[in-house]
Amino acid sequence: MIYFRSDYSLGAHPKVMDALVATNMEHTDGYAEDRFSYETADMIREMVGRPDAHVHFFVGGTPTNTITIAAALRPYEGVISPATGHIYVHETGSVEAHGHRVFAAPTEDGKLRPADIEKIMLHHEDEHCVIPKMVYITHPTENGGVYTKAELEALKECCKKNDLYFYIDGARLGTALTWPGNDVTLKDLGQLCDAFYIGGTKIGALFGEALVLMNDHINDHFRYMVKRACALLAKGRLIAVQLKALLEGGEDSLYYQLSRHENEMAIKLAKGVVEKGYKLWLPHQTNQVFVIVPKKKIKELEENFFFYTWAPYDEENDVIRLITNWNSKEEEIDAILEAL
Amino acid sequence: MIYFRSDYSLGAHPKVMDALVATNMEHTDGYAEDRFSYETADMIREMVGRPDAHVHFFVGGTPTNTITIAAALRPYEGVISPATGHIYVHETGSVEAHGHRVFAAPTEDGKLRPADIEKIMLHHEDEHCVIPKMVYITHPTENGGVYTKAELEALKECCKKNDLYFYIDGARLGTALTWPGNDVTLKDLGQLCDAFYIGGTKIGALFGEALVLMNDHINDHFRYMVKRACALLAKGRLIAVQLKALLEGGEDSLYYQLSRHENEMAIKLAKGVVEKGYKLWLPHQTNQVFVIVPKKKIKELEENFFFYTWAPYDEENDVIRLITNWNSKEEEIDAILEAL
Amino acid sequence: MIYFRSDYSLGAHPKVMDALVATNMEHTDGYAEDRFSYETADMIREMVGRPDAHVHFFVGGTPTNTITIAAALRPYEGVISPATGHIYVHETGSVEAHGHRVFAAPTEDGKLRPADIEKIMLHHEDEHCVIPKMVYITHPTENGGVYTKAELEALKECCKKNDLYFYIDGARLGTALTWPGNDVTLKDLGQLCDAFYIGGTKIGALFGEALVLMNDHINDHFRYMVKRACALLAKGRLIAVQLKALLEGGEDSLYYQLSRHENEMAIKLAKGVVEKGYKLWLPHQTNQVFVIVPKKKIKELEENFFFYTWAPYDEENDVIRLITNWNSKEEEIDAILEAL
Amino acid sequence: MIYFRSDYSLGAHPKVMDALVATNMEHTDGYAEDRFSYETADMIREMVGRPDAHVHFFVGGTPTNTITIAAALRPYEGVISPATGHIYVHETGSVEAHGHRVFAAPTEDGKLRPADIEKIMLHHEDEHCVIPKMVYITHPTENGGVYTKAELEALKECCKKNDLYFYIDGARLGTALTWPGNDVTLKDLGQLCDAFYIGGTKIGALFGEALVLMNDHINDHFRYMVKRACALLAKGRLIAVQLKALLEGGEDSLYYQLSRHENEMAIKLAKGVVEKGYKLWLPHQTNQVFVIVPKKKIKELEENFFFYTWAPYDEENDVIRLITNWNSKEEEIDAILEAL
Repeated sequence: MIYFRSDYSLGAHPKVMDALVATNMEHTDGYAEDRFSYETADMIREMVGRPDAHVHFFVGGTPTNTITIAAALRPYEGVISPATGHIYVHETGSVEAHGHRVFAAPTEDGKLRPADIEKIMLHHEDEHCVIPKMVYITHPTENGGVYTKAELEALKECCKKNDLYFYIDGARLGTALTWPGNDVTLKDLGQLCDAFYIGGTKIGALFGEALVLMNDHINDHFRYMVKRACALLAKGRLIAVQLKALLEGGEDSLYYQLSRHENEMAIKLAKGVVEKGYKLWLPHQTNQVFVIVPKKKIKELEENFFFYTWAPYDEENDVIRLITNWNSKEEEIDAILEAL
Repeated sequence: MIYFRSDYSLGAHPKVMDALVATNMEHTDGYAEDRFSYETADMIREMVGRPDAHVHFFVGGTPTNTITIAAALRPYEGVISPATGHIYVHETGSVEAHGHRVFAAPTEDGKLRPADIEKIMLHHEDEHCVIPKMVYITHPTENGGVYTKAELEALKECCKKNDLYFYIDGARLGTALTWPGNDVTLKDLGQLCDAFYIGGTKIGALFGEALVLMNDHINDHFRYMVKRACALLAKGRLIAVQLKALLEGGEDSLYYQLSRHENEMAIKLAKGVVEKGYKLWLPHQTNQVFVIVPKKKIKELEENFFFYTWAPYDEENDVIRLITNWNSKEEEIDAILEAL
Repeated sequence: MIYFRSDYSLGAHPKVMDALVATNMEHTDGYAEDRFSYETADMIREMVGRPDAHVHFFVGGTPTNTITIAAALRPYEGVISPATGHIYVHETGSVEAHGHRVFAAPTEDGKLRPADIEKIMLHHEDEHCVIPKMVYITHPTENGGVYTKAELEALKECCKKNDLYFYIDGARLGTALTWPGNDVTLKDLGQLCDAFYIGGTKIGALFGEALVLMNDHINDHFRYMVKRACALLAKGRLIAVQLKALLEGGEDSLYYQLSRHENEMAIKLAKGVVEKGYKLWLPHQTNQVFVIVPKKKIKELEENFFFYTWAPYDEENDVIRLITNWNSKEEEIDAILEAL
Repeated sequence: MIYFRSDYSLGAHPKVMDALVATNMEHTDGYAEDRFSYETADMIREMVGRPDAHVHFFVGGTPTNTITIAAALRPYEGVISPATGHIYVHETGSVEAHGHRVFAAPTEDGKLRPADIEKIMLHHEDEHCVIPKMVYITHPTENGGVYTKAELEALKECCKKNDLYFYIDGARLGTALTWPGNDVTLKDLGQLCDAFYIGGTKIGALFGEALVLMNDHINDHFRYMVKRACALLAKGRLIAVQLKALLEGGEDSLYYQLSRHENEMAIKLAKGVVEKGYKLWLPHQTNQVFVIVPKKKIKELEENFFFYTWAPYDEENDVIRLITNWNSKEEEIDAILEAL
């Protein structure tokens, strides 16, 4: 069975495992109060060009998103998300569990735009309404789309104008940072938003996301929020050790290399698929390829390949999602292209 | 200043006040454990034709809605509402405050239909998603629209098929029950849904809504839910005394009379407005009339009349809402028609 | 049946009813945005000697307590209460429903003292602990005890030292203000704490409590908190109209008169009980009298009197609570004394 | 610096690391839907003698406790814990964050007993009160104390009688299972309670706790509760792989060996300390040793040893906690004994 199902079906890159083994027998204090966590946070602050930023480590994207949002909002405030956003679709109401509304904005392609935000802002009148107070996007989007710097700046402006926090979910941030033609750097992100995270789970780590918080207000008593939400890892250093192994070296780091690899394999796949005469459901960007495939063919593929049937298309066809990972191999791409 | 702003700008009908005064000096136990509450609950059970129903009294619609929903849902479940629904638009996230999502379904006219529900059901896949578990509608709708019996039956069927509770917010129920051509009775409601409430605040009471719960599961430990949500009135009998004064006599009761009056005044108003050459924003039903009026004219009207400018219409016109109340007078209608 | 069970078993004082009837047919805007609410708030600010205070109206003590606490605290903060406090014992976890801990301090007599607070403060170390951030007391206490000015000042100092808000539940505040020997005035309360409320439900109103908020920080977006907690009454003026009728005239007001009456009847009762040879469970203050009575005698009393058996005492005796109300009559006191 | 501060200051036992490395490059589905998770769950069910039990994997004790409690309780229910319990003292109100009260029972030694439970049950009367519905204990206790089988059976009986769930936090369960004289086996636990967990973080894993749920009602939609609380690990297999490496072999497993080692080192330490003339604060059991030490001496020790000063004792002495870990060495014990 060849996996095109998710980018977290494997363990970690061997260099990450080596780092864990190498530091395994050192005693440190718990809960990310250790030299690895401090050093990695410093390194990230430097990469982002924000020596004043706060860095917090999490084991996954859902706690990162939920706790950042919960720390930022007062009880009567909510967060605006594209209707396709992870917090609206795939986190089982964890934001609502903290008492906050997610305003789901319908979008054409998964990208949120200022006009989508303005439409939601209109509905707030007075104390009978939830106040929209934060904008959440995923970069790249849930469909793999890469925001341009101009697009992010427009969102930033819109947030500023409407007194909204701006938060970016970077579960697959590396694939955006390394996408051909991308014009948004880590340093840009440090200027564009109040908070974002660099996702490790889907790009070479066992687990681990680094939240970068530029907003002191959101950071107030942040570790209390993390612990209360059950998300403070006892051996907190494990995340930092992994992220250090991945991120060290900046644009030459393992994280960038693996991200580029995910993209390259996806480009090869998307190109091959089109050459075979299939149509893509969405213009392809980053490591997800959405292909319109006859239902019969899907059945056939499922014998040897593991992937998601993403959406119905028409009577005869469905959309499948093929996703590449940090260890995807050319021969795996060739195999599925052949099978198609 | 003549009020067309809300149907709760006055106190209670004099007969309701009389009932409060007449029972004022009687000692009873607190928290709706008194003979007035028991008798009124019995009377309502009979009116609804459901001797097995549970009746609970509330001081307003927001606690009735929120607590019924919170009592019905498990933490990972949500409620489907038209996007115009009161719980989504005007209750400051009180459902989310209890940890539940409101799925907001866009509708053309404020009426929810089975297709709207089915679309939302599609999104639930597995434990990464919130489970839609209840349908919420207002009858009449927030715009005054009256559901037909066939429409409610279709919703009931859809709920049954999808394992959803069905709950009806009756803040202005009387105006639907007495609308010319309406084919839905209180007894029908007792068969159509899991719970609904008969709203008094907007039809002649100082305050007071009677929740009628046909579903034993939702009723389990219900009073604990009410008290925990701060909504158990110490002198609980006050609600029952008022609702008894209003509802006694069934279709000849004060409640039906006042509701009919609200409708008749609105019909006179809507007719007059159209005769004056104005256009209605929505086909008129029950006690709300939405009129498209030039902005300049609105300014003028505001000198003598108090109402809401509801929505922008085009560059020159806005939509205003004129609402009648249990004590609206013919001369008030004449006055605004003249001013228009 | 003669009622000594609660001080809210009757309706309102006739003058309060008169005020409701007199203002009944006036149109006003809803949700306490009306002249009655504004005027009553002004009057209260003057009585308290704090022109800068914020006044909010509630239908009962539980929403007043819960929402004030929820508005003051961040998610990881909690409130210290005597273990006998209403929020710990009789509000079904409504504070916890908003995500906050109630730290219950055992006390000898229901009065919280600085040493009780200090003991709880000790337990807070770091982000693994809930931060105690507010002190809640009832004045008079749940047992009727009246704090002296010196005691309240000591609590204030302790709160200041420990960075705690200080909030006073005044469900029966009038009985403390009018207790012989009491040295705490409304103006003192305006200086002693961050917030307190003047309770009407138990002293002559149908319902209604006025929260007086001296702390601007707690007041931030307060009405959003109230609405989200389902506690914004549509015809909000009803509370103000009643409280105005009660409080107008300061120390000569109906509120003070009724409070004095409750105390006087209780003094007569307590004195009579002791003369009959019964022992009081607690030294008597304000309108609650706790008497140790043989179980057999209690059975006998229950035939003609309605009261609470409060606590077991020993094998042969239980403690009963007899409570007077704004309309208690000398002959009712005489009747139960005779029966004893 | 020699660490006696916590039992999670090191990484994992080398055999656990080997297992992670050996399985690293295998593709599996995410979120614990993989063969490692299934196999490990089966193995644990067999060890516990409950083929019908549900097994769920967590990254730490706080999410395990919080989510199990939240899944079991209805909104108006609470959990009874010793006042020293981890959920009351060191989880930042995570249970309250889900809306539930923790009833903190004062105990002499950290062990909860039926009489402590009965005292709390007394306070529940009606819908104005939180219903105690679950008992939480830690085994061994937070002070290291080991419950006997008779003690646990008495708690079980008391829970049954009072309609309470019984849940056991096993963060350091191995040290209880292997304590000399212990008479409680894993199979006993499978009969004694509704749920317990086997803690790995403090006994040889990087992280990982296995919740064993015997109660089908608590298990209903459990994975929704886990995801909503942000605690479903993407690469869920990582926990199972570690726990398999630790638990395989039953009483001869690595888990039992490491637990025995922690106990043995602590026994050597406690014995040595007493021989030096120091007094223990509590009778010693399992891997925590509490010693009364002059404050001056503590300062001195802190130069070379890292540990907690646990509590004040008297003017001249404090209590320190020395804790052993899976890799504690005889020479480390000798070193601190010499320094004392």
